[in-house]
Amino acid sequence: MVINDKTTLKNILRGVDGTIGFVPTMGALHDGHISLIKKARAENDIVVVSIFVNPTQFLEGEDFDKYPNKTEADIKICQLCEVDYLFMPDITTMYDKDEVLVKAPKIKGFILEGSKRAGHFDGMLQIVLKLLNLVKPTNSYFGKKDAQQLSLINQMVKNFYLDTNIVECDIVREKDGLAYSSRNVYLTKEQRKDALYISKSLNIAANLIAKGELDSNTIQNSIKNTLEKAKQLDIEYIQIVDRSLNILNKVKLKNTIILIAVKVGSTRLIDNIWI
Amino acid sequence: MVINDKTTLKNILRGVDGTIGFVPTMGALHDGHISLIKKARAENDIVVVSIFVNPTQFLEGEDFDKYPNKTEADIKICQLCEVDYLFMPDITTMYDKDEVLVKAPKIKGFILEGSKRAGHFDGMLQIVLKLLNLVKPTNSYFGKKDAQQLSLINQMVKNFYLDTNIVECDIVREKDGLAYSSRNVYLTKEQRKDALYISKSLNIAANLIAKGELDSNTIQNSIKNTLEKAKQLDIEYIQIVDRSLNILNKVKLKNTIILIAVKVGSTRLIDNIWI
Repeated sequence: MVINDKTTLKNILRGVDGTIGFVPTMGALHDGHISLIKKARAENDIVVVSIFVNPTQFLEGEDFDKYPNKTEADIKICQLCEVDYLFMPDITTMYDKDEVLVKAPKIKGFILEGSKRAGHFDGMLQIVLKLLNLVKPTNSYFGKKDAQQLSLINQMVKNFYLDTNIVECDIVREKDGLAYSSRNVYLTKEQRKDALYISKSLNIAANLIAKGELDSNTIQNSIKNTLEKAKQLDIEYIQIVDRSLNILNKVKLKNTIILIAVKVGSTRLIDNIWI
Repeated sequence: MVINDKTTLKNILRGVDGTIGFVPTMGALHDGHISLIKKARAENDIVVVSIFVNPTQFLEGEDFDKYPNKTEADIKICQLCEVDYLFMPDITTMYDKDEVLVKAPKIKGFILEGSKRAGHFDGMLQIVLKLLNLVKPTNSYFGKKDAQQLSLINQMVKNFYLDTNIVECDIVREKDGLAYSSRNVYLTKEQRKDALYISKSLNIAANLIAKGELDSNTIQNSIKNTLEKAKQLDIEYIQIVDRSLNILNKVKLKNTIILIAVKVGSTRLIDNIWI
């Protein structure tokens, strides 16, 4: 059932007896989202998906106005995945003027993606807090692809004592290795070929680590070498951190994320691998 | 029962069947607080009081280090008022390093008190959000004395979709008219005499309004004249606003607050009257 009104959603969900699984999205649903929804469906009595292209997490000059919109296909996907409630609020109903704000942590909100997209995480955390408080989910599903987002949401849940279990979901990739992203549609054929070097470089890094290489510099260099084989791909960062986003000089097994951000033409792509 | 550990508090309260009334305080309980606690006791099955002198809402140079501490008397008061749970967390347990932050609204957080105490409301909203999420009260009790605080908390509850009913409680005054405040203990005998002009000026203003005077300028001038009769009292502001803190040129009956902030020696005092 599609619900546009937040009060209606809240009233329905407050009456629910059983567990609620929640998948917040910005729509343009792909197999990555579908894997989250399926996991939520398997693990909860009620599944809520939200689609809201949140303006406050886009910066000046970013793709807010042209962000892919696939409402009809999204609704169909949610039906097929047996979503109970699809929340699609109107943009004007989610924000008031001069609101109380959420701000990303001063350090961890401004490294990595935060250093390239100042303020992005403020807006992201603000809408996630709103949605979590509206839905009050037992379990909330987020993808590992947005690793820093996931880490900051985990931190917000801890700092604000929110009562939801954050479920960290594996990255889903196309057959050729490209991580699913709503922004992949922006890529030309040529750019897509270049983009494949991202997952390739991460796999090579993982193999290096499997063979015993733990030095971050060495691994970063290997990734850089692979990415430089692409025709037109600007590296924004290659970073090796632990699950709490602390930079690591040496890989810690089971507590490492290797993060890559690149620009392919005007499209920013991020990817990562959890070691 | 005194509880120091937040997880213990959370676990106990999640098992509660019935309404929870919550009175967050910074301790040094006076008749103002007691009126809130009694109201909470009368209206709820379970009453929770918190005492936490929140460091993040004090600015550099303010009285955090010398804020009145009356732990034993506070505990006794809570016992006598039949408080079920008195939450007194250790300062180190309420904040992590590099937290996700709450920020007061850009406009309404930086007028009035916010213009004199930049950042104060950020810290206040942060701790109130934490406490509300820990306690999950049915009803939360706040005094009208901190009118801007109350307005911003109301706004946070609305903006973040929090599930608690904010109960606005009347100002309690000493026999001579001085509004109860934990900071009144700082006043010398002479300063206390000066401080009485605050409530006096508000009463005169209320009488003016009762006689039909609605012009804000005229009312502000009347207050100023009264306050200037004190020997040593620095006026910080005299402001007339509606319940949402919008400045009013003309009093709106049933939707006006007249706010005063003064310094008496080194002690800041605020007071107000709701019209």
